[in-house]
Amino acid sequence: MSPCGNRPNGRYPECVTFPVVGMVGGGQLARMTHEAGIPLGIRFKLLSDTPQDSAAQVVGDVVVGDYRDLDTLRAFAHGCDVITFDHEHVPTEHLRALEADGLPVRPGPDALVHAQDKGVMREKLTAIGVPCPRHRIVSDPADVAAFAAEGARPGQGAAEGDGTGEDDGFPVILKTVRGGYDGKGVWFVRSEAEAAEPFKAGVPVLAEEKVDFVRELAANVVRSPHGQAVAYPVVESRQVDGVCDTVIAPAPDLDEELAGQAQELALRVADELGVVGHLAVELFETRDADGTPKVLVNELAMRPHNSGHWTQDGAVTSQFANHVRAVLDLPLGDPRPRAPWTAMVNVLGGDYPDMYSAYLHCMARDPQLKIHMYGKDVKPGRKVGHVNTYGDDLDDVLERARHAAGYLRGTIVE
Amino acid sequence: MSPCGNRPNGRYPECVTFPVVGMVGGGQLARMTHEAGIPLGIRFKLLSDTPQDSAAQVVGDVVVGDYRDLDTLRAFAHGCDVITFDHEHVPTEHLRALEADGLPVRPGPDALVHAQDKGVMREKLTAIGVPCPRHRIVSDPADVAAFAAEGARPGQGAAEGDGTGEDDGFPVILKTVRGGYDGKGVWFVRSEAEAAEPFKAGVPVLAEEKVDFVRELAANVVRSPHGQAVAYPVVESRQVDGVCDTVIAPAPDLDEELAGQAQELALRVADELGVVGHLAVELFETRDADGTPKVLVNELAMRPHNSGHWTQDGAVTSQFANHVRAVLDLPLGDPRPRAPWTAMVNVLGGDYPDMYSAYLHCMARDPQLKIHMYGKDVKPGRKVGHVNTYGDDLDDVLERARHAAGYLRGTIVE
Repeated sequence: MSPCGNRPNGRYPECVTFPVVGMVGGGQLARMTHEAGIPLGIRFKLLSDTPQDSAAQVVGDVVVGDYRDLDTLRAFAHGCDVITFDHEHVPTEHLRALEADGLPVRPGPDALVHAQDKGVMREKLTAIGVPCPRHRIVSDPADVAAFAAEGARPGQGAAEGDGTGEDDGFPVILKTVRGGYDGKGVWFVRSEAEAAEPFKAGVPVLAEEKVDFVRELAANVVRSPHGQAVAYPVVESRQVDGVCDTVIAPAPDLDEELAGQAQELALRVADELGVVGHLAVELFETRDADGTPKVLVNELAMRPHNSGHWTQDGAVTSQFANHVRAVLDLPLGDPRPRAPWTAMVNVLGGDYPDMYSAYLHCMARDPQLKIHMYGKDVKPGRKVGHVNTYGDDLDDVLERARHAAGYLRGTIVE
Repeated sequence: MSPCGNRPNGRYPECVTFPVVGMVGGGQLARMTHEAGIPLGIRFKLLSDTPQDSAAQVVGDVVVGDYRDLDTLRAFAHGCDVITFDHEHVPTEHLRALEADGLPVRPGPDALVHAQDKGVMREKLTAIGVPCPRHRIVSDPADVAAFAAEGARPGQGAAEGDGTGEDDGFPVILKTVRGGYDGKGVWFVRSEAEAAEPFKAGVPVLAEEKVDFVRELAANVVRSPHGQAVAYPVVESRQVDGVCDTVIAPAPDLDEELAGQAQELALRVADELGVVGHLAVELFETRDADGTPKVLVNELAMRPHNSGHWTQDGAVTSQFANHVRAVLDLPLGDPRPRAPWTAMVNVLGGDYPDMYSAYLHCMARDPQLKIHMYGKDVKPGRKVGHVNTYGDDLDDVLERARHAAGYLRGTIVE
């Protein structure tokens, strides 16, 4: 990081050596990264789609523009010491162009492609021996049926939800290899006939076995360019309708050996893929034929992640602070928990657009509640915030977080 | 707080009911208040002297202007739901004008005057029975000598530092009633001859006995308009050259009854003076003639305060978050500590303008260290940040904080 490097015309005219972090994307992850960067004394610059985006409301140095346009990206990058991301959608060729301009891009395009393209991710993870669900790129519905049949257990009964009376290997999961999130771009199909939809967009489709999992976990790690890495406790993540609903840290009753394996796996993925910054490894906890617990990798995210929001109030160093430290190649902060239990529950929009009176009520009911609002307009089902609670008693911690999130959404009316 | 009240042209065009807090003053207190307001989802607007001020670097909605100009204040206040402060310097008549415009000003001018004018503060505290050092407004050096003589103990030896061999009541403390801070506007005088300087500015001067204190404490409370109030643990505050250096929470070995008295005293001051927001009551711990511990009020500050910075990492709810909640009349957050001990040490500028490599070293040495930088240029003796540490062992907690602050300043070179 060269002092006063390439920022002659920026917002910071004085010759300071504290670097400028440029973040692409104005969502809540950028908002919370800026929040975490303030005490670190770093300068934060944002590329946002609109001036009303969640992060753009609270950041001082905002460029409004389209990250898909290379000239916009280049103009934004002028004055930044490093570029990082709120989302995975910046085209790989643009990232390479920025790198060719001499600007550090973290995570870099060679790592990020594994979070952008599920086909590339599966291929790489399999090559390095990381356990994944059975998977294959499929070309049409007949190929989906063939993929399903490869997983059928002859002589066994049909899987649940299948009407044929014989195991044909369905259901399977189909995913577009790029662009999906929060259940979008993902289909649960029970027959060849149901498998037509995903192919309509003309993009590559990945088929995966439907894993009979015990629960979902996430192993979150942070890695810096020179290879320092820290691992957060493995958490349990509960989804509702394909959207993360609740995270519990640490995952209750998790086999200690499995927890260690999951952390090691995530650290190995970060290292093998050359990830810089926060890496969320979403996992299925399942059982071997002999009942031994094991994990399979579901998804990767190379940025702060919903499964790490609990760290804001529950860990010594939050995922956001450690992401900033990592992309600047600063020494990483302690990832250990500050309380025996921390719970995070997402706040989704309900039918009533004004959340302020519910928010006031929640503060009055629970003075220890940690509310994190994103500054977004309330729309039904939209993530507009989350709450964190922590304490010694898991039931109490969970009840408080669920009550607050439900009350804010309007599904609990005391 | 009326939905979409008076902000038709602001930064937030959508009809949201989350309010806009306007803060006057762009220093580090505003910077950290903005940081605390981000998760609360409130909108934050800043009136700053320059675009380079500590807070102006990180806030989205900044008006650059002079708070001493009423038109500037009024233009700034347009679009805000409440006005609060980073400092006490806004003229009282301007605050009254804003109130007359219908805008909530918190703390209001009737409360704030007690933090602006030490003469008014002493008169009021004495009237409500709050123990203060012996004090009186003095008119000239001869009057100072008379004030000193009123405190002389006849037949006793001279106080330390006095060369006369007889107790003439000196030394005494002289303070300009307005405008002093961090040791500025304060004189320690040992004789009538030394008492000339403070009168040269032609402003009222307050004389106070030099209290023979055991140590300095601070009792910090937060009060909301409808009268809810919370008290933080009483802390020990150590000054070096009149500037706060170290804060320890809670104050070690503090008599439990005295701690309770100090908290009650601070809550009573907040209530009697009608304070809204954070109130820091700086105290001298001393002893009665019979050896009973007691406290005397030294100073008041009606805003987040250096003695409360430890709450960012050491309390369930920080002073900054609770200040925001109070000025919006939201329910207050839990003020209890999260660790047995928390220490805060200020980072002052040293001779070397580049603190970044020292900062990196401190992070590597102590992954649990919480650094808070203010984005200020380093100048010798200037407060440019602070560090917080917490843990079970006070010696360790203090050593870590002192080492980091000293290393950043350059007075410790490992």
